[in-house]
Amino acid sequence: MRRDPLPTTADPAAYRALIRPPGAHYIDVIDQRALPHTLVSARIADAGRAALAITGMWVRGAPLIGAVGAYGLALALDRDAGDRALAKAHAALDATRPTAVNLRWALDRVRTKVRPLPEPERAEAAWAEADAICAEDVLINHAIGGHGLTLLRAIARRKSGPVSVMTHCNAGALATCGWGTATAPLFLAHAEGLPVHVWVSETRPRLQGANLTAWELSQRGVPHTLFADAASAALLRRGDVDVVFVGADRVARNGDVCNKIGTYDKALAARDNRVPFYVALPSPSFDPALASGDDIPIESRSADEILSVTGRDEYGQATRVAIAPPGTRAVNFAFDVTPARLVTGLLTERGIATPSAVGIGVLFPERFA
Amino acid sequence: MRRDPLPTTADPAAYRALIRPPGAHYIDVIDQRALPHTLVSARIADAGRAALAITGMWVRGAPLIGAVGAYGLALALDRDAGDRALAKAHAALDATRPTAVNLRWALDRVRTKVRPLPEPERAEAAWAEADAICAEDVLINHAIGGHGLTLLRAIARRKSGPVSVMTHCNAGALATCGWGTATAPLFLAHAEGLPVHVWVSETRPRLQGANLTAWELSQRGVPHTLFADAASAALLRRGDVDVVFVGADRVARNGDVCNKIGTYDKALAARDNRVPFYVALPSPSFDPALASGDDIPIESRSADEILSVTGRDEYGQATRVAIAPPGTRAVNFAFDVTPARLVTGLLTERGIATPSAVGIGVLFPERFA
Repeated sequence: MRRDPLPTTADPAAYRALIRPPGAHYIDVIDQRALPHTLVSARIADAGRAALAITGMWVRGAPLIGAVGAYGLALALDRDAGDRALAKAHAALDATRPTAVNLRWALDRVRTKVRPLPEPERAEAAWAEADAICAEDVLINHAIGGHGLTLLRAIARRKSGPVSVMTHCNAGALATCGWGTATAPLFLAHAEGLPVHVWVSETRPRLQGANLTAWELSQRGVPHTLFADAASAALLRRGDVDVVFVGADRVARNGDVCNKIGTYDKALAARDNRVPFYVALPSPSFDPALASGDDIPIESRSADEILSVTGRDEYGQATRVAIAPPGTRAVNFAFDVTPARLVTGLLTERGIATPSAVGIGVLFPERFA
Repeated sequence: MRRDPLPTTADPAAYRALIRPPGAHYIDVIDQRALPHTLVSARIADAGRAALAITGMWVRGAPLIGAVGAYGLALALDRDAGDRALAKAHAALDATRPTAVNLRWALDRVRTKVRPLPEPERAEAAWAEADAICAEDVLINHAIGGHGLTLLRAIARRKSGPVSVMTHCNAGALATCGWGTATAPLFLAHAEGLPVHVWVSETRPRLQGANLTAWELSQRGVPHTLFADAASAALLRRGDVDVVFVGADRVARNGDVCNKIGTYDKALAARDNRVPFYVALPSPSFDPALASGDDIPIESRSADEILSVTGRDEYGQATRVAIAPPGTRAVNFAFDVTPARLVTGLLTERGIATPSAVGIGVLFPERFA
């Protein structure tokens, strides 16, 4: 049964990646390292802990990192609102993750807001600006969801049975302040009774698909099936997938997409099998300063993430196991770059952009002058 | 320092996937489920255990499965060499794995050999035929290695530094009676002092790359680096890979390749980045009865393999951990099909075949009449 689109933009999920109780001078985040085995909340009440939450991957996902960074700056200003302290906190938070551009965007936005103000007013203004960033993120994701929903409805009209969507990593509500980016269309479709089925890639090495996306979908009752990363091309070739929705950490001026390692493979496989491949992103993930994806710095993470896997042992405890012979060398690129030519469209809050300088510029002229 | 090619076809490795001591009426195999954490040998002294070793994946790899099947038939004939027992053992062993064609080929070869013989002579003839299959497999792989070595030498002449080869899963000595298929060129190159570096994909869900290929390469001192399956396209795009060598479970008449899940992705990524992609296979892996890859039955294995990972815990014990929320559904295709158009060449014992009916027919006219 179809209903009208939800009348509100609020995400009805029972979980929130980030909460700031009204007036509080701290935030509570889900410590995502413990999911899906345990749901643990972590309180962040100083800027150093905000930085640690990002580097330690308690929180991840470009939009959420941006929000935590903004609150981190507010926390720093609570302690010292002077120019030097502001510059120092901005630099420290900006250094926590090199790939996502939302972090820098959010930090710059808070700094721009507070710098003209007298010192005693800065901290409150920073908290208000961080709140605004979060509230806007929810609105943005809801709008992305609406545009994606239009695509899903069109597919549903052409076929019987559920619309089958492949996703990668976690571009869900846990990566944002609500709804998620790639998942927003799925959640809206499910809410209006349009049947969807989601193919979830496990996303080695950190298993965000198995740990986070599968958890979110099960929390919301959306049917889904987990698969090994290496099976994405086979699934696409079998005709089991109607459309691919992924997120983005950063998108260059020409539409090249930097996202979780394994995105580029899926784009190639989608193209080879004529399956549309959409990248969902809030406009703060665009980086007008980058001409192409070749200029995006790619973060390498610890080889330990490749050499081991963390899961639940038979006693229900989170346990890390080693999978390779002792002494094995490993490489761990956290992201890859998907060339714009492989992307069907960029799902943004203003609609679906053609992945090119012109296409992006038409939707966001104020940022791509 | 380069030396002449090894004067012998014997694989100098200290380990052997399968050994039949001269005259013995059993075989000893490496129980590959325990690698790389422990090196355990398992004795196979009856046909039921041979079947179990295949279904339980103590042994895996198309050529090795064929050899174990052949010995399994010999073991069955030791007990009862009558026509009905022969047919029954043939059927039981043939049912153990649906994808590899070498198994059927080896079982048929033994049956064809023994059927015309009087019953009392059948068992010994079967043992001799299984020995011959093994010995030929070593020769075949050595010849494959020689043709691959020619490719590696050509690459080495064009560049400085080691030749960088990507491989997937385990098409190594552990998958065969010696040398391996995709690894034979690497081992021969290393033996003659031609520097190689191997990119090893971990190969979820069963981690044959991390567990077996990394182990084999470290046993032989060949430099290598492990990576997550999802990183193959990024590695190819970075220009870090000179050539891709993979194995095959079955190759159709038109050159379509059935191999471990994740092979097709790598072929797509190699093509997109103009990196040559070779499939190494012994001719028994050709299936002249299959017109194209679309006709290859693809084996689905247990969802548990996707939902969990086995590794070494902090006490050095093999431990299985769950990676998804309880109740998650998973799909586990063991193989995929790589279209012939993405394959640069088929590395066989008779040379490099163009992946087409004509190309294969030229090298193996007696099988593709």
